[in-house]
Amino acid sequence: MIAKTPEPPYYAVVFTSVRTGADAAAYALAAARMVELAAAQPGFLCVEHAGEDEAITVSYWTDLAAIAAWKAQGEHLAAQTAGKDRWYAAFALRIARVEKAYGFTA
Amino acid sequence: MIAKTPEPPYYAVVFTSVRTGADAAAYALAAARMVELAAAQPGFLCVEHAGEDEAITVSYWTDLAAIAAWKAQGEHLAAQTAGKDRWYAAFALRIARVEKAYGFTA
Repeated sequence: MIAKTPEPPYYAVVFTSVRTGADAAAYALAAARMVELAAAQPGFLCVEHAGEDEAITVSYWTDLAAIAAWKAQGEHLAAQTAGKDRWYAAFALRIARVEKAYGFTA
Repeated sequence: MIAKTPEPPYYAVVFTSVRTGADAAAYALAAARMVELAAAQPGFLCVEHAGEDEAITVSYWTDLAAIAAWKAQGEHLAAQTAGKDRWYAAFALRIARVEKAYGFTA
């Protein structure tokens, strides 16, 4: 759940989403496939996810060029279209440069 | 759920957490109180949350000084101590400068 990331700076894509609930089986398949594809992209670091119908997914990347390449990836483009057409009632996406990070383990 | 934020730049605090499950009633009270207190801090913009025992909370702030002031707030310091002592098995906190943002509503 908690991603291991390198020392900053690196980049975070914070994707906050509200699902329509439609087409749930296809959504689940596509979501798993997108994680698999993203992880194979150059510059991918890791991903964290929480929630269900209301969810936050944060993916971490080495740089902005890696994020732009992932946004333009073919199968991902098709998923983005399906997302707007069927799966998401609303979402927000924010691209942010991580400047400081720390963690805790009990 | 999806926070309204101004045009970038602004700052995000991405708090990813895994709960111990201990002391759940006190945790719920403290979590609600922290949202109330944070919202009253100078420079607070808004907050998004998803998940339960594994959760991601993203709070948005105007600048780094506002984030530092919130970290040092008295009642919040006490909650941070309780969090490490009882509530969290692990967490990661990342402070990031939002450079680009967009959204979608069906």
